[in-house]
Amino acid sequence: MTDILFTPRAIGFARTPFKDTAQVPKGPGTKHEADGTLEILPEFAQGLKDIEGFSHLFVIWVFDRSDGYDLLGAPPGETVPHGVFATRSPRRPNPIALTVVELIRRDGATLHVHGVDMLDRTPILDIKPYSSSIPIDKLRRGWLEDVERRAGKR
Amino acid sequence: MTDILFTPRAIGFARTPFKDTAQVPKGPGTKHEADGTLEILPEFAQGLKDIEGFSHLFVIWVFDRSDGYDLLGAPPGETVPHGVFATRSPRRPNPIALTVVELIRRDGATLHVHGVDMLDRTPILDIKPYSSSIPIDKLRRGWLEDVERRAGKR
Repeated sequence: MTDILFTPRAIGFARTPFKDTAQVPKGPGTKHEADGTLEILPEFAQGLKDIEGFSHLFVIWVFDRSDGYDLLGAPPGETVPHGVFATRSPRRPNPIALTVVELIRRDGATLHVHGVDMLDRTPILDIKPYSSSIPIDKLRRGWLEDVERRAGKR
Repeated sequence: MTDILFTPRAIGFARTPFKDTAQVPKGPGTKHEADGTLEILPEFAQGLKDIEGFSHLFVIWVFDRSDGYDLLGAPPGETVPHGVFATRSPRRPNPIALTVVELIRRDGATLHVHGVDMLDRTPILDIKPYSSSIPIDKLRRGWLEDVERRAGKR
């Protein structure tokens, strides 16, 4: 399977308070409370129709300032290495990120959102409506639970 | 911004009961109850370490049998067109899909999962741990709520 799957293109860019990765809150139990905007390119703006009915959105974006990947790594706040697919590390085989944001309001092709964790001017690949949740009492969260317990965060 | 953002590569492939799109349950209120496997390629298998601690996973995959995109479209069960970013249509500017699955067990580089909705042999781009949920009473779900109400599904 050496075909090109597709060629990713930016549908827009995020504007956030974070100019470099050191500024992005990280580690177990981190709450993302920053406000930002998702500025959708004019040619894709029509795709936002009716998005304002949703309180939360999935934003799929590119770790565009990350290079290469590690299959194992110790996340912030953790000493033991875990597999990359069990973490949110930016150093992934495909540098794709996923953030759930709260949609505050839409202003034309600009979405004002709460809960951003990407760097300023990050390319956005896709936005999808967040339409259901796994009940928290049905979630097991592996090494994250252990770290949070040790940190006294839960 | 005409640089290539990155070149997507399959980290593995999904095996599911669905040979064509007509077989995939669709429309408002659909529950995805099918079992399947995510077969991760040997060169990425080490990235699965400790994933079995998580009950649910985000699977990011490619709509590899979809071509082109529509900025507006009426989803299954709906007559009014909505913006593509307010729907889960496969016809998106970047043909990227997102599914939350329940991880039943891991068998080497094979993840046995519940809740698949992708076609058999779909390329997988990424897997991430599902670590938190928006409480259901905080969700507004726009046109989806309206359609489900009309259909008597809620």
